Amino acid sequence: MTRIAVLGCGRIGAMHAANIAAHPRASLAGVYDIYRPAAEAVAAKTGTRLFDSAEAVLACPDVDAVLIATATDTHADLLEAAVAAGKPILCEKPIDLSLARVNQCAARIAGRGVPIQLGFVRRFDPGHRAVQQAVRAGDVGVLHQVVITSRDPGLAPEGYLRVSGGIFRDMTIHDFDMARFVLGEEVTTVFASGARLVAPDLMADLGDFDTVTVVLTTASGKQAVITNSRRATYGYDQRVEAFGDKGMAISENRRPHGMTLHGAAFTERAEPLLNFFIERYREGFDAEIDAFVTAVESGIAPEVGFEDGRQALILAEAALRSATEGRVVQTAEVA
Amino acid sequence: MTRIAVLGCGRIGAMHAANIAAHPRASLAGVYDIYRPAAEAVAAKTGTRLFDSAEAVLACPDVDAVLIATATDTHADLLEAAVAAGKPILCEKPIDLSLARVNQCAARIAGRGVPIQLGFVRRFDPGHRAVQQAVRAGDVGVLHQVVITSRDPGLAPEGYLRVSGGIFRDMTIHDFDMARFVLGEEVTTVFASGARLVAPDLMADLGDFDTVTVVLTTASGKQAVITNSRRATYGYDQRVEAFGDKGMAISENRRPHGMTLHGAAFTERAEPLLNFFIERYREGFDAEIDAFVTAVESGIAPEVGFEDGRQALILAEAALRSATEGRVVQTAEVA
Amino acid sequence: MTRIAVLGCGRIGAMHAANIAAHPRASLAGVYDIYRPAAEAVAAKTGTRLFDSAEAVLACPDVDAVLIATATDTHADLLEAAVAAGKPILCEKPIDLSLARVNQCAARIAGRGVPIQLGFVRRFDPGHRAVQQAVRAGDVGVLHQVVITSRDPGLAPEGYLRVSGGIFRDMTIHDFDMARFVLGEEVTTVFASGARLVAPDLMADLGDFDTVTVVLTTASGKQAVITNSRRATYGYDQRVEAFGDKGMAISENRRPHGMTLHGAAFTERAEPLLNFFIERYREGFDAEIDAFVTAVESGIAPEVGFEDGRQALILAEAALRSATEGRVVQTAEVA
Amino acid sequence: MTRIAVLGCGRIGAMHAANIAAHPRASLAGVYDIYRPAAEAVAAKTGTRLFDSAEAVLACPDVDAVLIATATDTHADLLEAAVAAGKPILCEKPIDLSLARVNQCAARIAGRGVPIQLGFVRRFDPGHRAVQQAVRAGDVGVLHQVVITSRDPGLAPEGYLRVSGGIFRDMTIHDFDMARFVLGEEVTTVFASGARLVAPDLMADLGDFDTVTVVLTTASGKQAVITNSRRATYGYDQRVEAFGDKGMAISENRRPHGMTLHGAAFTERAEPLLNFFIERYREGFDAEIDAFVTAVESGIAPEVGFEDGRQALILAEAALRSATEGRVVQTAEVA
Repeated sequence: MTRIAVLGCGRIGAMHAANIAAHPRASLAGVYDIYRPAAEAVAAKTGTRLFDSAEAVLACPDVDAVLIATATDTHADLLEAAVAAGKPILCEKPIDLSLARVNQCAARIAGRGVPIQLGFVRRFDPGHRAVQQAVRAGDVGVLHQVVITSRDPGLAPEGYLRVSGGIFRDMTIHDFDMARFVLGEEVTTVFASGARLVAPDLMADLGDFDTVTVVLTTASGKQAVITNSRRATYGYDQRVEAFGDKGMAISENRRPHGMTLHGAAFTERAEPLLNFFIERYREGFDAEIDAFVTAVESGIAPEVGFEDGRQALILAEAALRSATEGRVVQTAEVA
Repeated sequence: MTRIAVLGCGRIGAMHAANIAAHPRASLAGVYDIYRPAAEAVAAKTGTRLFDSAEAVLACPDVDAVLIATATDTHADLLEAAVAAGKPILCEKPIDLSLARVNQCAARIAGRGVPIQLGFVRRFDPGHRAVQQAVRAGDVGVLHQVVITSRDPGLAPEGYLRVSGGIFRDMTIHDFDMARFVLGEEVTTVFASGARLVAPDLMADLGDFDTVTVVLTTASGKQAVITNSRRATYGYDQRVEAFGDKGMAISENRRPHGMTLHGAAFTERAEPLLNFFIERYREGFDAEIDAFVTAVESGIAPEVGFEDGRQALILAEAALRSATEGRVVQTAEVA
Repeated sequence: MTRIAVLGCGRIGAMHAANIAAHPRASLAGVYDIYRPAAEAVAAKTGTRLFDSAEAVLACPDVDAVLIATATDTHADLLEAAVAAGKPILCEKPIDLSLARVNQCAARIAGRGVPIQLGFVRRFDPGHRAVQQAVRAGDVGVLHQVVITSRDPGLAPEGYLRVSGGIFRDMTIHDFDMARFVLGEEVTTVFASGARLVAPDLMADLGDFDTVTVVLTTASGKQAVITNSRRATYGYDQRVEAFGDKGMAISENRRPHGMTLHGAAFTERAEPLLNFFIERYREGFDAEIDAFVTAVESGIAPEVGFEDGRQALILAEAALRSATEGRVVQTAEVA
Repeated sequence: MTRIAVLGCGRIGAMHAANIAAHPRASLAGVYDIYRPAAEAVAAKTGTRLFDSAEAVLACPDVDAVLIATATDTHADLLEAAVAAGKPILCEKPIDLSLARVNQCAARIAGRGVPIQLGFVRRFDPGHRAVQQAVRAGDVGVLHQVVITSRDPGLAPEGYLRVSGGIFRDMTIHDFDMARFVLGEEVTTVFASGARLVAPDLMADLGDFDTVTVVLTTASGKQAVITNSRRATYGYDQRVEAFGDKGMAISENRRPHGMTLHGAAFTERAEPLLNFFIERYREGFDAEIDAFVTAVESGIAPEVGFEDGRQALILAEAALRSATEGRVVQTAEVA
């Protein structure tokens, strides 16, 4: 059994704690949250140990690995501390909102050989993953275009948005990682268009966008398009399309069930889409934990690691610069 | 060019006349209708010849073949006359509402070798036909079950229903033919359940049903289910499913276009189904004429002939008896 | 917390035990299996108590309710014992293969007021349930026809089939319950056609069928059709269609993910269907436990109870008689 | 009857001639082609008059209107001549490959009041049109994003590509018009990325691209994305998505029929998409002629006119400049 402690018991940390407890080859080794009642609630439900500090978790010999689901601005510090303690880490994205801090972190952990997995859960979604595997298997031939649609079901609270780092670092970052995952090749140019259509006043106040379209290109000429909105009335719109010289693979949206209604004015009317990430990526979150447990057990590096987190942040930086300056940005300018 | 005259210029006859005129290897050789203005309208639109009688059509040396789309009770007489005149015939279904009259007709035309094609247009629908071809090609393996859904978009006018011969002879007859087409084997037992749910009073008055379910079985154990209703609010519901030991083929419904709408309360909301047979089976009616022209040109017997019309009527008789008497009927009892 | 013990730790009992343990308002109070290692495995995984006998479970004051997932031939005895002990029961279907035994059991437990829920899990499937709720809400208007497709992904082992009670009591029984659930009205006549197409020799030896079609009718004229096969290569085919005078609701099949592939020879190619019931009805099994916990907590009778189990068995008996005797059977003959 | 003559009897001109002949309120007034046998073939099939020159057509008093389907480099001259002759015009796109020539043409025909309809047939596709109408009707709320996928089933012959004016003027031009149609607002910035992935050597030789992604933005912040490829193995991929603050409308792809196949390795396997534009936009071509006939009859300006052709060309120019120079281009730079 791999004994995993969870740092941060907010909504996503609590979910991870439950998933770890349910995993056949993992156990929940304890929880910690700066806001103690959050950790207490998880401990009460799972019967796991309550830690008084992150340091105590990292010092505990009964903890084999840690999952970092704390506030974003603590990720890099905790990553460094966990690496120093030799504990394998599953860290929620992003590593940090600052590329400089991420690069510093990279330097500090270099060569330590501690497994680090980044929480890009969409790589583990069965449908998206099947698209990537179809590409790798040659089912679509040589890849030409990737089209990613990613729209949240509703605008996050203002308090969240203020500290989110902006749409590119907070939301599109998942799509940047997905684009890299499917493309299988690094991005060389980024064009991003940002608009304020969902909440114009708030976005203007934040200097942020709520509606963006991004085009990425690679050295070999592949193109990836990302379409984002902070609010889709019909649910959490999550689609990935890979088009190549032999065909196309699409990961379609998912609904809570398969009932369709047919009447005098319509046919095939289905439910709104699954809402929100905990529901939509339920299988993905399970598979993510499973991949982490397997990586810890086997000693083989996690398939999505620190450098993937850094690369996605580079694309976010480039996109922000592109949308702000109204020009195409080379990733080499940013990295 | 195969010169085809059309007898009967009602809605379906007028449509056939236009299709013949548009066919690259056929020409419309003339039209006749007992109600002269109907024939005049078609002649005006197409520039074709107007005949004064069916006899005149059959006697005309410039007519290579005839399409019979007159009232049902004239079909058998015209068939016999056309056979006597040596003109190949495409006859709308049914041959006659009386099996005895059909058998008599069969005896009279026996051995004359004049090509007769029955108007079971659904055999020529690209989707339904693809199901049948998947079965013949072995794509579903050995066939086990056939499931046919056939629901009209709205109740026909009372006047029509009164002379229709009842739902089994008028509506289900198409499904009986489709079942035979897909099964590739004769039916040995028939069970039919009939209900009066759409227009109970009218149906009771007519001694007819508006909602029926029929189960057919063959000597080798194959099963076919037919589900009929005289009124589906969402359009003309036409589906065929073939299930076998290697898989399944389904001919799905068709809509006028592919627009779907997604909103706060629903996703994938599509248009009502194509309504009615002239729209739904547009490609089928074209292919039916093409098959007839090809049969006349080649001298090869039409793939759906007089005997298919007779067999479908036998199943209709058996179904009526089953629904009326509440018991399973052997087709041998009827034939 | 409702403390539930599980009797029988085979595949389905073990699954129920895990679901109970994960339920927020229930706890797993212990397990028992006549084959002790099966119970030990569940106890080891969940940390729950291991009982030495069913009697010990029923006598234990720390057990609030029991789930019966033992061999079918023990269900009725355990039901009676649990009722005598005053423990609410969630009992896997069927109650017994013998209608006489079920009637005897009914007499013995009559008036005791102990909540009994039958394990017809499909009622709790979100899609099927949405169909039933659309019917109840009037979204399809007055119901006319129900079409249920239910095909297993593969033939069960011979050992299982020998003691299954035959396809109608073992497999179709779920569809009989679904038909009753959607119809909202008792069935008066049953017609069943049975064939031996999947495993002819074995079925002949067992006196059983592997391919059946059943038509049920109600006093008001509603019709329900059930199509079963013991083997569908493309997965676990589970569809429910309700057709009424205002429209239609369909619960469509489910696949593990939403990836579709498009190439030179095809489009929209998707994965095989979810296989098998534990995967397909995962949400249903969760909701079933939740409904049981809620019933025990609230004292309100479970929505699917003993009498539903008895009625489904009556339909199975009638269907078997119909298929065997080749005639329509009135349920009144059997009940 | 509106008497329409067709100039140019290549594949598309011949199709238009047949559609005009079949239109209930139009008649085919004659045909002309510089390659006489092409015109003769159409005349033979339809029985229409054969003209010796475009001048003769325009001078003929029995011609009410003309359809221009000649080689692209003759469009502007014929447009000017037809306007001078006072004949309403349905002109295939593009007006000319040179924006300067189009502007000159615009100046020459200004103020003449002769109805001109541009052949942007996709506006008349029932599905795409339903998307635009859903937007206009407010069904998707305030429009935020438009996503257009347009991929040809196969690379056009080299000879065609050499004179096509390049992918933006030849292929994307349809999507530029569709974007304008759905956006309902003029485009202010254009970003285009062009790649050579389908036929790298040929494209390099031509200075053209075969794979492009374009992002258009409007003054109000709306975004439109166009994804093009010169070759999709699975057929003619034509999709339009409109996303707004109340929901989304999608015009999905169309297949020749609705048969799907299900087997051990897959489900829902459907046919390749309709291939090519004459099949896919069959209803659109009919509706386009109908709109033209209605415009000529009513004197109301066609809904898609000369200026729409000019604006689409402006976008093509801007896209070409963007893809070539690797920068965002303001449409004001080009227009």
